[in-house]
Amino acid sequence: MSQILSEVLAANQGYASTFDKGDLPMPPGRRFAILTCMDARLDPAKYAGLSEGDAHVIRNAGGRASDDAIRSLVISYKLLGTREWFVIHHTDCGMETFTNDVMVDLLSSSLKTASIDAGGWHDCCQGPGSTEGKYINWLTIENQEQSVLEDVTRIRRHPLVPADIPIYGYIYDVRTGRLVEVPEATAAGMAG
Amino acid sequence: MSQILSEVLAANQGYASTFDKGDLPMPPGRRFAILTCMDARLDPAKYAGLSEGDAHVIRNAGGRASDDAIRSLVISYKLLGTREWFVIHHTDCGMETFTNDVMVDLLSSSLKTASIDAGGWHDCCQGPGSTEGKYINWLTIENQEQSVLEDVTRIRRHPLVPADIPIYGYIYDVRTGRLVEVPEATAAGMAG
Repeated sequence: MSQILSEVLAANQGYASTFDKGDLPMPPGRRFAILTCMDARLDPAKYAGLSEGDAHVIRNAGGRASDDAIRSLVISYKLLGTREWFVIHHTDCGMETFTNDVMVDLLSSSLKTASIDAGGWHDCCQGPGSTEGKYINWLTIENQEQSVLEDVTRIRRHPLVPADIPIYGYIYDVRTGRLVEVPEATAAGMAG
Repeated sequence: MSQILSEVLAANQGYASTFDKGDLPMPPGRRFAILTCMDARLDPAKYAGLSEGDAHVIRNAGGRASDDAIRSLVISYKLLGTREWFVIHHTDCGMETFTNDVMVDLLSSSLKTASIDAGGWHDCCQGPGSTEGKYINWLTIENQEQSVLEDVTRIRRHPLVPADIPIYGYIYDVRTGRLVEVPEATAAGMAG
């Protein structure tokens, strides 16, 4: 068993040993959902004050309003009753460090991990690579305010999103732990 | 400002006021990633023992290996150096309570929240609805062991996933807080 796996299972045993939340209902008690980035530095339960049972948390690379995030949000509202949504990107995001073309090139030369320096991304190792990276839109980010605005707007206009759910746009600052509003995004996400 | 929004911002102010993790690097320190469900009862940081900076956390409805989850996992490995992945579904998942057909019917009749009882899902309100639900695969789940196995297998076989990354399959029990392995899934996810 790998060290990580045994650490995770030991941590889980500790959590389960004092677990007292086995009776929580399925629908989120505080009736809201957060879409945010998978970044390891972000703990949405901590930065937004969530206890188990409070809110849905959807996470992907960038916190983007992908089709899959919209699938999840529509289920969250329609079947599980959330009433407000947050889109929360963050400073110093990995998605700002590359482009679709860079990712396609890196994956073509090798599937092994790349490294970054002042000159950009470089492959550490020789192949095998794959040209399959062309068939994925990596949803990279040039500007966080803009990406939050675009994602809130995309969700707002989606035909399966009801007009009366407000959507708030924020950026989490990884240096300070603080949520900073993107006012244009929240304005675009106002319930109609 | 809504009550939820003011509560979230107040909780964030508390978190930021004692925040001392502003110097964490972008790549996950413990070099692993978890794909799990958005369910409000799940707190991956607590159930798997994560601190800020440790691991990527990807979440969607069901914890499914959607194209978007695979996008995120490939970025997690290729650019940010994770070396082990977990797929963690859970008991009493909302994704077990409906099918694609049910969701399409519900959305066609109304975008408002539906409710469930012994007879299944019912719309509470009259329209407007939308037929757009047909164009989304909702990735519902009939059997959790099977869905974990399918998702680990899908990731394992993806052409952009390197052969040497192990993928572990688990089910989180919402009654006990415990992670239970799906041995067939972990076997399918073994590094090759």
